[in-house]
Amino acid sequence: MEGSYPLQARNTVRRHRERAKYDFETVHSIVNASPILHVSFLPTDPSDDPFPTILPMIGYMGSFDGPSTGALDVYLHGHSASRVMRLAGNHGPEGIPVCIATTLLDGIKLSLTPFNNSCNYRSVVLHGYASVVTAEAEKEWALHLITDGLVPGCWDNSRVPPTRAENLSTSVLRVHIASASAKINQGGPSDDRKDLQNDEVTGRVWTGTLPLWESVGTPIPSITNKVTEVPGYVVQWRQNQNAQNESYAREAIEKGK
Amino acid sequence: MEGSYPLQARNTVRRHRERAKYDFETVHSIVNASPILHVSFLPTDPSDDPFPTILPMIGYMGSFDGPSTGALDVYLHGHSASRVMRLAGNHGPEGIPVCIATTLLDGIKLSLTPFNNSCNYRSVVLHGYASVVTAEAEKEWALHLITDGLVPGCWDNSRVPPTRAENLSTSVLRVHIASASAKINQGGPSDDRKDLQNDEVTGRVWTGTLPLWESVGTPIPSITNKVTEVPGYVVQWRQNQNAQNESYAREAIEKGK
Repeated sequence: MEGSYPLQARNTVRRHRERAKYDFETVHSIVNASPILHVSFLPTDPSDDPFPTILPMIGYMGSFDGPSTGALDVYLHGHSASRVMRLAGNHGPEGIPVCIATTLLDGIKLSLTPFNNSCNYRSVVLHGYASVVTAEAEKEWALHLITDGLVPGCWDNSRVPPTRAENLSTSVLRVHIASASAKINQGGPSDDRKDLQNDEVTGRVWTGTLPLWESVGTPIPSITNKVTEVPGYVVQWRQNQNAQNESYAREAIEKGK
Repeated sequence: MEGSYPLQARNTVRRHRERAKYDFETVHSIVNASPILHVSFLPTDPSDDPFPTILPMIGYMGSFDGPSTGALDVYLHGHSASRVMRLAGNHGPEGIPVCIATTLLDGIKLSLTPFNNSCNYRSVVLHGYASVVTAEAEKEWALHLITDGLVPGCWDNSRVPPTRAENLSTSVLRVHIASASAKINQGGPSDDRKDLQNDEVTGRVWTGTLPLWESVGTPIPSITNKVTEVPGYVVQWRQNQNAQNESYAREAIEKGK
């Protein structure tokens, strides 16, 4: 998908601008590779309580109407009675302002000095307006999107559609993006020339990168499970995740050199 | 460390209260097991821009004066010219209100129906006042704490202390906690009785948990590294992390059953 989120004061990265990305593909792929999103909002009028709050939520990006511009919405699900759902529900179609952030940590880079230590990572920060999805068709489409966003194929391999009671107790938020940016760091550690020229320091301090990735272990059947074989969609997802996650972390070190 | 964060309206968990924890040890250990913290704050007056924002930051909990009450502060570091440092710096000792969140994802639980899918996780949400550390001794202590919080032993195995230029370009925030809560989910998936009694469903839908943990791969030396052997503190940390992370994810499934 071509195109980018426009640069505005709110989303323009100022530190390490060379790491910034604004294109749809980068932003969407980092969000969709993140099992958990951190969603920040103002729970009350700031004059009552000065603190923003953060909820960890599960979500996925997509477009119900089809991407006319290339930008996607973030869909998040949660209990209908939760605070963020009630707040957004009371605000109607214009929604409440939220910030959504995710960070995938790909490695820790150890330099000659703690000051130059850094990390390989892929992060996204986006701002948008969150409103409760009221149309039945869009809600079921979004629940399918979010479910399969975590483990593809899960929806069709489960008991669906949701019952009326399940539908009532789950709500879906659609976050229409106002601004977004991604930040990616790759490569190995870097050091200042002065430290690199100091033989006493380079002779005793190891520098390098510790690659990090999320591993998926052997599936553990539940105590009520009656299906003896782990289904193909789970086996496939596990293989793909383990291969992709590990190779990304290793290749990121090479790529950024 | 005994003691708990007091229950207030802001930090009382309302959904799945049985998962909530407020004791110091649980809150502090989850934050300190998290390499990245998501920090939310209001970048401007809400009348100018309605959005809170989130920064991914590296931090660690500790107490410079020694824990008289058992509560700890969160220390975060960043570039001195970054927005959050300038905002907090302009607010003086009372600091700016922030929310800090972290979520460690330990497993994905697949149920008979997507509605009952859930995750094993350890999360913390805390609120506090962030101010810039101005005392030299506390700042160096905090940089040491944060550096070793990521990989223990790193500080003493690097070129320290920081130079004057390094000290000037790095700032440290101390977040004094106003309220905090943790939420922990363990065990396998659960299902509704109606689905469990439906032989057509239980005969075809696999249910169970996919354990997840962060793996640390083989350390990759930098192109300028001159120390042939990976140092013991790195080897030890990698072994500990891999063993602890994997066993936590596996044991969490058993524990919560």
